[in-house]
Amino acid sequence: MDYLFAERMSKTPRSFIREILKVTEHPDIISFAGGLPNPSVFPVEELAQVSKDVITDEGAAALQYATTEGYYPLREWVANRYNSRYGLSVTPEEILITHGSQQSLDLCGKVFIDKGTPVGIEEPGYLGAIQAFSMFEPQFHPIKLESDGPVLNDVQRCMEVDSCKIVYGVPNSQNPSGITWSDTKRKEIAKIISEYDRVFIEDDAYGEIRFRDEYYQPVKKSIPDHVVMNGSFSKIITPGMRMGWICAPEKVMTQLVTAKQATDLHSSILAQRIIYRYLSEYPIDSYIKKITDTYRSQCDCMVKAIRQEFPDSVSYTVPDGGMFLWITLPEGYNSLDIFNKALEEKVAVLPGIPFYTDGGGINTLRLNFTNSSCDQIEEGVRRLSRVLS
Amino acid sequence: MDYLFAERMSKTPRSFIREILKVTEHPDIISFAGGLPNPSVFPVEELAQVSKDVITDEGAAALQYATTEGYYPLREWVANRYNSRYGLSVTPEEILITHGSQQSLDLCGKVFIDKGTPVGIEEPGYLGAIQAFSMFEPQFHPIKLESDGPVLNDVQRCMEVDSCKIVYGVPNSQNPSGITWSDTKRKEIAKIISEYDRVFIEDDAYGEIRFRDEYYQPVKKSIPDHVVMNGSFSKIITPGMRMGWICAPEKVMTQLVTAKQATDLHSSILAQRIIYRYLSEYPIDSYIKKITDTYRSQCDCMVKAIRQEFPDSVSYTVPDGGMFLWITLPEGYNSLDIFNKALEEKVAVLPGIPFYTDGGGINTLRLNFTNSSCDQIEEGVRRLSRVLS
Repeated sequence: MDYLFAERMSKTPRSFIREILKVTEHPDIISFAGGLPNPSVFPVEELAQVSKDVITDEGAAALQYATTEGYYPLREWVANRYNSRYGLSVTPEEILITHGSQQSLDLCGKVFIDKGTPVGIEEPGYLGAIQAFSMFEPQFHPIKLESDGPVLNDVQRCMEVDSCKIVYGVPNSQNPSGITWSDTKRKEIAKIISEYDRVFIEDDAYGEIRFRDEYYQPVKKSIPDHVVMNGSFSKIITPGMRMGWICAPEKVMTQLVTAKQATDLHSSILAQRIIYRYLSEYPIDSYIKKITDTYRSQCDCMVKAIRQEFPDSVSYTVPDGGMFLWITLPEGYNSLDIFNKALEEKVAVLPGIPFYTDGGGINTLRLNFTNSSCDQIEEGVRRLSRVLS
Repeated sequence: MDYLFAERMSKTPRSFIREILKVTEHPDIISFAGGLPNPSVFPVEELAQVSKDVITDEGAAALQYATTEGYYPLREWVANRYNSRYGLSVTPEEILITHGSQQSLDLCGKVFIDKGTPVGIEEPGYLGAIQAFSMFEPQFHPIKLESDGPVLNDVQRCMEVDSCKIVYGVPNSQNPSGITWSDTKRKEIAKIISEYDRVFIEDDAYGEIRFRDEYYQPVKKSIPDHVVMNGSFSKIITPGMRMGWICAPEKVMTQLVTAKQATDLHSSILAQRIIYRYLSEYPIDSYIKKITDTYRSQCDCMVKAIRQEFPDSVSYTVPDGGMFLWITLPEGYNSLDIFNKALEEKVAVLPGIPFYTDGGGINTLRLNFTNSSCDQIEEGVRRLSRVLS
């Protein structure tokens, strides 16, 4: 039979990454294509014990229906973390626990985006956000990224010419580019957003994964009422439980809670209690240090190998956090060709095209460094350099 | 600041149930207002052990990102269950694991509903579906329920006059009415749906919770290509992990997977593995028997008490499964008044109004029987009868 699907389905790209990963899963392929955290640092034993303890000690309360907003002690933990780390003044009531950052984006889409709503997004932009928002059929307006963050003229144009209602961005170690917005850029953008009285969706998935001992204040610090901030336990504990959160001003939170009820009632109360207990019983800062130490050394390996192996005509970002590095090939190169040729050399890369909402990015690639050993990274970069030259 | 929210937010009712539950949570109130499974039958010890074993034995695989479609062995279990219990011919590829039935409805909304799409829904209809679908701004067309299921003329009208693209219903022990569709009605409705080549969303959340040893074939059995079926582990294991599924024909599944990716990437792989392991290690049929035995005796208590206590002018359904019983008061009664007066008598009921998409149902109530002891049920019904007379 012919099914009559909703219009949005023809506008939402099926994840190119997830399709590509099926091709690159063979064990003899060195893959820089995915975006997986390094499983060697997962706190497996700790989580096994904590899971059993939570169900044994808390019984039915850990298994029954629960409140839409989330488990209060966990909301409190998130608020406290923001306040101590970023100097924000957030209350637990401003935190909603979600089934991961991707769901936070879905809920933001529901609350803010009508068909045709103008939305500003970084270029290249986070694919998950492009997908989540596409479900609500916005009009995307790209804001070009340069080495210290968004091009300010593009942000200004987005407000003035395109009338963007919301702007989405990832100021810390952006996915896919690895770029971190400078302090100056953050303040300038906060000024523009508040001047036009718009909403900034500040995705801080990588805010805890910093390679140097420094970080900048989030945009939310300057204009708290104008910012909805998303965070995730995927990068600092594990992603498989799908646990994240949204931090939003009260009036926005009321709408988000209605959307969350309609979407899946509430987030897994078992997962929330497991994570809270883990955070209470183990020192999260030293665990995060272990993750950042590991990722920093993997990133250093990749940067070093690229510096040695790649032709000078290829440019690349040097991330100070996160999981990705961004490659720009000379004009005329097609990253889909590179993808195919690299696969013949048994190394997988991710073409940058799906990160562009306007069909650009043909000569760009995203490389992930967290899921390969230093040896694999060196070998993979060598193979890739053969393809490039 | 004034936030510019999406139009859908003004059309989606915030859950009346969840708001009401906040009022009815005091321990001295006997509550028939909620919809919680009975926690006394939760397999707490078994799940505690299984959770630890899954993480210990399966390690990072239970904690890492996973496939959108779901954990294959669990999809296989669901398909096999359908095939052995209902005589369907479903493959694991036709199963998508979701974060609970509510999410299954959200995904169906995304895939099928544009703004203004005509959708047929039972009256009274399941509130969760009304909420989930409202996010996509459909035009609801009510299909009245009678004692053996939907009024056929209404289904016919829904196709012919209203051009409904999809019809949603709960043939087994419907929430809120407790009504089970007869075999004849199922076949008649299947005939109409396939004649007009439309899609039926068959919500089978209560299909395993049957009080007699009999059940009817689902509508999907007659017209598999026209039916998307939703199921849930909430009622047969526990609801707190938010685990359910959608069973859909291949062409629909492709769209549902795209929508699921955009919504939250995938369902918790830890929860999926815990549930699969629990199903593998423990005899689920004898556990389900324990649940149905408990609920049957609670339901019998309530029916008996109502028969003894309520005025003859009040009519009620006698469910043969599920968790709810439906009360129709004489014309002129207002269930919101009854709700308030009952609360003074320390018994909580749920007014039926939010289950109507056209503002009707003013003289109806939903009573839940699964979360009170027989003594509480008898006492609660006595209190309620004082309010009614």
